[in-house]
Amino acid sequence: MKERIVITDVGPRDGLQNQPKILSIEQRVELISAIAAAGVPQIEVGSFVSPRAVPAMAGTDRVFAALDANATYKTPSIALIPNLKGYELARDAGAKAVTMVLYASDGMAQKNAAMSMTDAEDITMKILRLAKQDGIEVIATIAVAFSCPFDGPSDPLLVQSIASKFIDAGADQLVLADTIGSSDPQQVRVLTEALVESHGPSQLGCHFHDTRAMGLANVYAAVEAGIRRFDSSIAGLGGCPFAPGATGNVATDDVAMMLQQMGFETGIDLGRLMEASDLAETLTGTAPGGRSKAWLQGHLAKQVG
Amino acid sequence: MKERIVITDVGPRDGLQNQPKILSIEQRVELISAIAAAGVPQIEVGSFVSPRAVPAMAGTDRVFAALDANATYKTPSIALIPNLKGYELARDAGAKAVTMVLYASDGMAQKNAAMSMTDAEDITMKILRLAKQDGIEVIATIAVAFSCPFDGPSDPLLVQSIASKFIDAGADQLVLADTIGSSDPQQVRVLTEALVESHGPSQLGCHFHDTRAMGLANVYAAVEAGIRRFDSSIAGLGGCPFAPGATGNVATDDVAMMLQQMGFETGIDLGRLMEASDLAETLTGTAPGGRSKAWLQGHLAKQVG
Repeated sequence: MKERIVITDVGPRDGLQNQPKILSIEQRVELISAIAAAGVPQIEVGSFVSPRAVPAMAGTDRVFAALDANATYKTPSIALIPNLKGYELARDAGAKAVTMVLYASDGMAQKNAAMSMTDAEDITMKILRLAKQDGIEVIATIAVAFSCPFDGPSDPLLVQSIASKFIDAGADQLVLADTIGSSDPQQVRVLTEALVESHGPSQLGCHFHDTRAMGLANVYAAVEAGIRRFDSSIAGLGGCPFAPGATGNVATDDVAMMLQQMGFETGIDLGRLMEASDLAETLTGTAPGGRSKAWLQGHLAKQVG
Repeated sequence: MKERIVITDVGPRDGLQNQPKILSIEQRVELISAIAAAGVPQIEVGSFVSPRAVPAMAGTDRVFAALDANATYKTPSIALIPNLKGYELARDAGAKAVTMVLYASDGMAQKNAAMSMTDAEDITMKILRLAKQDGIEVIATIAVAFSCPFDGPSDPLLVQSIASKFIDAGADQLVLADTIGSSDPQQVRVLTEALVESHGPSQLGCHFHDTRAMGLANVYAAVEAGIRRFDSSIAGLGGCPFAPGATGNVATDDVAMMLQQMGFETGIDLGRLMEASDLAETLTGTAPGGRSKAWLQGHLAKQVG
């Protein structure tokens, strides 16, 4: 039996919020449904943040409602939340899981959330306790886990200490995010090996951006270290407001293709994933597309023909 | 002291022969000189093949003569040769090293060179003996070392057997080529580990294409296995006539950047490499450019500014 790796598509949140074009609620639901139809097992469908700060994520409650109303949509929907108010909105909207952002640098915590690292930890700890009572899963994501555009390289021991704190407190998933796409596979290998050794692989995940073209190399390094959960983004949608020239999250298209070729089971149908990827490109007009797209489309056409 | 990794830029040969535009001798020399000026330690400057079959490589003797006449050009120039006649032309042109192509499948040997795998071995063995007498280095490259578009997955034991035969016979370098860009890092890891275990790393190299976006992941996997020599192509020039949609060789730009960030010494100045990469794009009009280019240019501009 093949070993399973769980991919979470964060395109409808991390991707869309970094695209110039703002999609309608109907378009967001259409994209999410297409990703789900390809068999992606988890989807970050939106965030409950200030619509003034992030206009692309306005109306995420309506996205949840539309998905709920669709009897064929069964994929666990995740909402990113920044604070207690966001948590309440996500809970009321019916989110099965929430992503909270922690920080490995004060520079990024201040810039992204106007709070300190420890403020973010305190808020996340409070929400974790509420979510346990409410039966909602908590994904704790450590932003700038490798390096920060403001404060430089992150301290691996600090990252490990934050990770331990939240795994011990009961976080369902703990994700290391290379927010600005700065890490190399050697760094990834060292940090993920240390975390897998301390905590085992079941709750750990990684989130890579492809800014320096090392996205898939970093996924491979993390797989070698035992990581079995990855965030990625349909058609490589994404970017980072603090990383000029950032070319988006690592594409679900590429990650799924590589992991399947390496013999892992992802549950994803690559042909239907290409349909979702094409839709992401059509809807946004700026999605880069998976980097293996030219090959993958030819390959799939041959299989069908 | 940092550990060294040797990059051979094969753009002026493997790259240019797969571009639609045929460059003049002067343009080829200009590109090679720019790559050398960036500190790339080895360059495959052309091939001595039939100008009817590969028009882009016509006049490689004049490329050698022009490089010889340039007192500031000191980089070891490599010529790819298909047969004894090619060897004589390369020797007479002053090549310091020649690349011979071996095959891990009969399908590719027939299609690419109209001979059998064993014919290619016999010819290479003869040339190896002559080159030893002439003081010319021999690089034996095993094409389709991972899989073949005609015959399917290559047999790792066959690849190891060919490699052993030519290392034992005195080949100076033995390169595993993923000619169609089909390998994944898991396959690379297994095959390169076996070869490093048998022969040590000093003569072994890898040659990857980025068709499935796994080029850098494959470089990393090979580095982990102990490989310290890589072929790559300036600005990702390349492709493969037998792999539709192939997006070129892995870019020297990306490989050098990743390896340097991982703490290896390559001897390459990334700023000057960007100049060579820009030149490759200008001259050919179709070079994809390094995939990390947007980031790398911004990064280098900040360092200067």
